[in-house]
Amino acid sequence: MLCRRCKEKAEIYLKRHNTAFCSNCFRIYYSEQVKRNVKREKMFKPKDRILVVVSGGKDSMALWHILLKLGYNVTGMYINLGISAYSDRSQEVVEKFSQANNAPVIIKNIEKEYGFSIPALAREIRRSTCSLCGTIKRYLFNKVAQDGGFDAVATGHNLDDEAATLLGNVLSWQEGYLARQSPVLPSTHPKLVKKVKPLFTLTERENLAYVLFNGIEFIHEECPHALGASSILYKEILNKLEDESPGTKQRFLTNFYKKGRKFFEKYSEPVKLNECKICGQVTTSEICSFCRIRLMVEKKKADSILQEGDGFNLI
Amino acid sequence: MLCRRCKEKAEIYLKRHNTAFCSNCFRIYYSEQVKRNVKREKMFKPKDRILVVVSGGKDSMALWHILLKLGYNVTGMYINLGISAYSDRSQEVVEKFSQANNAPVIIKNIEKEYGFSIPALAREIRRSTCSLCGTIKRYLFNKVAQDGGFDAVATGHNLDDEAATLLGNVLSWQEGYLARQSPVLPSTHPKLVKKVKPLFTLTERENLAYVLFNGIEFIHEECPHALGASSILYKEILNKLEDESPGTKQRFLTNFYKKGRKFFEKYSEPVKLNECKICGQVTTSEICSFCRIRLMVEKKKADSILQEGDGFNLI
Ligand SMILES: [Zn+2]
Ligand SMILES: [Zn+2]
Ligand SMILES: [Zn+2]
Ligand SMILES: [Zn+2]
Repeated sequence: MLCRRCKEKAEIYLKRHNTAFCSNCFRIYYSEQVKRNVKREKMFKPKDRILVVVSGGKDSMALWHILLKLGYNVTGMYINLGISAYSDRSQEVVEKFSQANNAPVIIKNIEKEYGFSIPALAREIRRSTCSLCGTIKRYLFNKVAQDGGFDAVATGHNLDDEAATLLGNVLSWQEGYLARQSPVLPSTHPKLVKKVKPLFTLTERENLAYVLFNGIEFIHEECPHALGASSILYKEILNKLEDESPGTKQRFLTNFYKKGRKFFEKYSEPVKLNECKICGQVTTSEICSFCRIRLMVEKKKADSILQEGDGFNLI
Repeated sequence: MLCRRCKEKAEIYLKRHNTAFCSNCFRIYYSEQVKRNVKREKMFKPKDRILVVVSGGKDSMALWHILLKLGYNVTGMYINLGISAYSDRSQEVVEKFSQANNAPVIIKNIEKEYGFSIPALAREIRRSTCSLCGTIKRYLFNKVAQDGGFDAVATGHNLDDEAATLLGNVLSWQEGYLARQSPVLPSTHPKLVKKVKPLFTLTERENLAYVLFNGIEFIHEECPHALGASSILYKEILNKLEDESPGTKQRFLTNFYKKGRKFFEKYSEPVKLNECKICGQVTTSEICSFCRIRLMVEKKKADSILQEGDGFNLI
């Protein structure tokens, strides 16, 4: 098979576009997709300051690389969540990329800064690791972006991620989630920074090809807690539909954005936003989820110190 | 496992309800479901005259049987579409049931009454057999129901059928289809009879159990033209989701009816309905699809006679 653009030997076949590319022309295709998404969806302007959420995985490393290459004013941000060796290896990948590319990066370490590790905390307060992790990430990325005066937070969500999320939302007809699923979440409060997903038209496989063709190091394993999540089943199912009828996945997502979403949007009630009484960040309650987590950690610590005290008294 | 109701040995386990029944109690469950659906969705009243679409398959035979058993004023209607041995065997099943149960039935034969067989016509006019078949069935069931003064046309669509249709409509975000998918389609024109689906909360497997437990004869094979249809893939996929998380299929459908559908309904524009210039039945064009098909058949016949004539002239 030959590259559609230069007629050299093709290295990747994109079934849903019925097109094959050599690695060079694939890089051009990839870059054009990102440029078009940023422009068409009004994600950010050339001079905007972008905070890129990086995990060390293929999607976020591809995003960081392409945005730098396109000349955007980009800063990476990595959060070490204390998930055993996985966190250490992924931090190393991120730091090496930053040094090699002279790319600014902000590193946060939950255990060092806040005194808890996600898996231990999840067990203690009986919440799923994934939901706890999501809460903490959303909070910190927004806070750092806002404090640092960034114009947008960019994440590496790909076509497969977005289509799987959409399928999950549709299966339960969660109108609120359906109304808010979008490649661009505008800022609805002075303390909420805009969120954008420049890779939403590119598949997992295309992001993998991009990092491989560019020799970008990345962490191959998924977060160990993500295994068995329903999103994996939804991805399998969408891949099955895609095999039978190439293009189904992208049509499902883009037709939702073009046609489906507006039906839910007009019906969704605006959420009332407050400022957290403790930290001042935006929340729908009195105290934000992050501060509530921190309060629980403090309480646990106090409890365990008091219990030790009881023990001494008994001697 | 024991029957939830009578504690005898269970014969069927309904995973999504986490319940098992003996065959007797299953019949009660089944009957209650149908009664509830008819009542809650205002499908028809006790004295209404119902035309039941019967194909000889498990779903429509189950529907015919349960509606008779519940004492409704029911007439079966079967259309022989000329699909080889499949049509003859299914007609036999329907006629035998009618005689054994003293149940009135209307039999139509497309080839005898209109002079064409569906498979041959589909090849000639290059339309899919399934879409042609759908057009002809919709037309004739409505016409017979209207001419005969019936209050509703009932079909055997089950939970699997409805969920698969919904998945297909959602994957392409067809707002018009989404707005109109419903267990009850009210009459929107004096010449359109109300359409109802009393089995929409019962699965294929439950309909199969119902006909087996009641010793109802039915045709096991599916229409040979239905193989490979996308609805089969959608059913497989929904079964996979159901295996992982029992109840998903029913939640997907019933939450759509409860919550999802209204979003599309309010946006769907009312379709302008005319009366066909040839037959007077309702259509969105000048001449209805059925009459257009008949005109094409007439034209083909005339063409072939004229060609034969040309042949004679050349001698
Ligand atoms: Zn090329
Ligand atoms: Zn707070
Ligand atoms: Zn029982
Ligand atoms: Zn007509």
